[in-house]
Amino acid sequence: MKKYTYPDKSQWPQLCKRPAFDPAELENKVASILKTVQVNGDQALLNYSREFDKVELDSLSISLTDKTFTIDSKLAEAIKVAKSNIEKFHGSQKEETRVIETMQGVACWRKSIAIQKVGLYIPGGSAPLFSTLLMLVIPAQIAGCNEIVVCTPADKSGGLNEVIGWTCKLLGIKKIFLTGGAQAIAAMTFGTASIPKVDKIFGPGNQYVTAAKQMAQKIGVAIDMPAGPSEVLIIADDSAYPAFVSADLLSQAEHGSDSQVVLVSDSEKLIAEVGIELQKQIEDLPRKEIAEQAVASSRSILLESLDVAVEFSNEYAPEHLIIATENVDAIAEKVTVAGSVFLGNWSCESAGDYASGTNHTLPTNGYAKNYSGVSVDSFVKKITFQKLTEEGIKNLGPHLEKMAEAEQLKGHKNAVSLRLEKLKPS
Amino acid sequence: MKKYTYPDKSQWPQLCKRPAFDPAELENKVASILKTVQVNGDQALLNYSREFDKVELDSLSISLTDKTFTIDSKLAEAIKVAKSNIEKFHGSQKEETRVIETMQGVACWRKSIAIQKVGLYIPGGSAPLFSTLLMLVIPAQIAGCNEIVVCTPADKSGGLNEVIGWTCKLLGIKKIFLTGGAQAIAAMTFGTASIPKVDKIFGPGNQYVTAAKQMAQKIGVAIDMPAGPSEVLIIADDSAYPAFVSADLLSQAEHGSDSQVVLVSDSEKLIAEVGIELQKQIEDLPRKEIAEQAVASSRSILLESLDVAVEFSNEYAPEHLIIATENVDAIAEKVTVAGSVFLGNWSCESAGDYASGTNHTLPTNGYAKNYSGVSVDSFVKKITFQKLTEEGIKNLGPHLEKMAEAEQLKGHKNAVSLRLEKLKPS
Repeated sequence: MKKYTYPDKSQWPQLCKRPAFDPAELENKVASILKTVQVNGDQALLNYSREFDKVELDSLSISLTDKTFTIDSKLAEAIKVAKSNIEKFHGSQKEETRVIETMQGVACWRKSIAIQKVGLYIPGGSAPLFSTLLMLVIPAQIAGCNEIVVCTPADKSGGLNEVIGWTCKLLGIKKIFLTGGAQAIAAMTFGTASIPKVDKIFGPGNQYVTAAKQMAQKIGVAIDMPAGPSEVLIIADDSAYPAFVSADLLSQAEHGSDSQVVLVSDSEKLIAEVGIELQKQIEDLPRKEIAEQAVASSRSILLESLDVAVEFSNEYAPEHLIIATENVDAIAEKVTVAGSVFLGNWSCESAGDYASGTNHTLPTNGYAKNYSGVSVDSFVKKITFQKLTEEGIKNLGPHLEKMAEAEQLKGHKNAVSLRLEKLKPS
Repeated sequence: MKKYTYPDKSQWPQLCKRPAFDPAELENKVASILKTVQVNGDQALLNYSREFDKVELDSLSISLTDKTFTIDSKLAEAIKVAKSNIEKFHGSQKEETRVIETMQGVACWRKSIAIQKVGLYIPGGSAPLFSTLLMLVIPAQIAGCNEIVVCTPADKSGGLNEVIGWTCKLLGIKKIFLTGGAQAIAAMTFGTASIPKVDKIFGPGNQYVTAAKQMAQKIGVAIDMPAGPSEVLIIADDSAYPAFVSADLLSQAEHGSDSQVVLVSDSEKLIAEVGIELQKQIEDLPRKEIAEQAVASSRSILLESLDVAVEFSNEYAPEHLIIATENVDAIAEKVTVAGSVFLGNWSCESAGDYASGTNHTLPTNGYAKNYSGVSVDSFVKKITFQKLTEEGIKNLGPHLEKMAEAEQLKGHKNAVSLRLEKLKPS
């Protein structure tokens, strides 16, 4: 880790920088994939599977209704616990409709209604991300989405990963589509004979997927949020366990060589001890090389106080923020920008990544400044309604006329005047 | 209006089409404006004011603290009523923090925290849109945004429109920036010596503004939603007043020649009567030519029943939906896609445009399928928090280990194992 000691505030913007990644660079390649899928549909997807994933698929979809999958019983139990916790937390996000009478006879309310068709992208790669499946399917189901389209690349044998299959069955998903990368995003954007067109696309992915989602957004499909490499910032003081802090940093570092891990502390001692622990723990990681690259380009920052540390964190805008300090609640109160926050020595990021109940699809790359993580909100539109009684339009109408007149919109005024006229005692 | 009688469902997608508008066509022009503002800052803005707005500005900002503005007292009262109603409705959207214990020792909650810096764009043009000022400033203030940057083009004399100035004072806005169009969006995206860089940009505008917002989004600034021409769809039956329906259609049509107005009914008689009323009412509109163009390209659609009418409306995804039928509540229950819905004969769109309390910044162009209108939600991030006790990690930890192992993320597992180890009785 690169060490910074009491950096001047003028240096902060530099310390908050993420590695440059411009999805626009991939735009030509990705645009060509989108176009090809739009024109050739399923055939294009089958070709890309052959070309990119080296598998020959008979069909792009697998019906799960008559299939069974077998997984380790302890893992099955863990996934069930995760499901239950995620359901509890996301279930609490449902919004009740409340009618507000803003003035006599003028009732306004809003109602959360599910986005009808959503597309969930579950990346393949080195390991099957069944946790992402839980994190996206559960809020979609709680929201009440009519159609939940799940795309994931086929495994090396052209089939579906066993744990993904088992988790789909547990969640009641009846069909899954075997396509990955930018072409999966294209399929859900335009629709193909096999894969339905959706209204909003969710899920993480590599730079191609990110670029494809960005382009899909320009075509009229909504997306969950912009993406970037995963990141954690830890605020720790002398009350923290260096071994825990190191392990938390490494759990982020192992994601990818471009993962961002940042340690901020008011204690030189803690920073030194974490440095030693890191070297020790990293040796045992199967993804050691990746973690080493991530750690090499990461930062530890010694600051004057924990207050300054939070201030720095708010400027950095971390996806994950772990606060391992004394008086953790008081520090947490000062957090204004972060994706998800983990408080105290026992709240490791892994808890939120898998099973505590919060969502793990979070804004990275500084987007915590202006985006929220995925929640039930992400799967609904909030439609406003209003109903004016005769009394309501009588009360409000004259004001509406005045305002419409001032904005020189006579038609807007007429719509009111005609109604007021009708209600005049004859 | 073009009449369609019992169109087959296969025709619906065609009837739901909006006029093609591709902001990408403007991309070169707008990209050049963005670049120029990024490089030359304030000077670029002053140059654009001279070039596009034909005004020579001394300063890009006006401090309002020592200024007074005078407006008609009835208008002042109307604006105050609107403010109060909008505050009441948006005030009800604030979300309370609720702590959910998903399992023993595992507490999760989420907290709405304001986006720190927001930029509000208020278009100039033929009339000052003080209503948009109300609709954007009030939710930003309720959310608690730290910095609210308001940009609007100078009037022809290089000053600030009196009603806009008065409304700003009423809202407690202390400073306003005199710049418009794509260059205003550029200024808030990059920041200039005078105008602060913001985290999220809100507000309507022409095609240049729309294209600029879309490009700003790629640079890291969030935006409220994609934009398009304004639109209304009215579902009416024989219980509706043809004069009201016509006036509501025209209040939308007068916005612009590209405004979309659609009438859907189960009554041939109503459609005919509305047609006659339209011709009569349009004559008196100062913006008659604009309205005529909009009406000429608009549609009336006779359908089998009101149920089919709602089904069509859900496919059309209107920004504004007026339901003027018997049993209006039963019909409203079936609405799954719309920006804002107006129920019954007395709820004209003008009410929501100005002063009933709901927001008038709504998804158009079919985006009601996957976006919500502006609300307090639009001005906050919802940050999740979690806190595990020793008991919590003991309960959850073994499941986390199992899941991390299955996703082949040893670092994630270690972060848990070290904690469980520490808690083992020695």
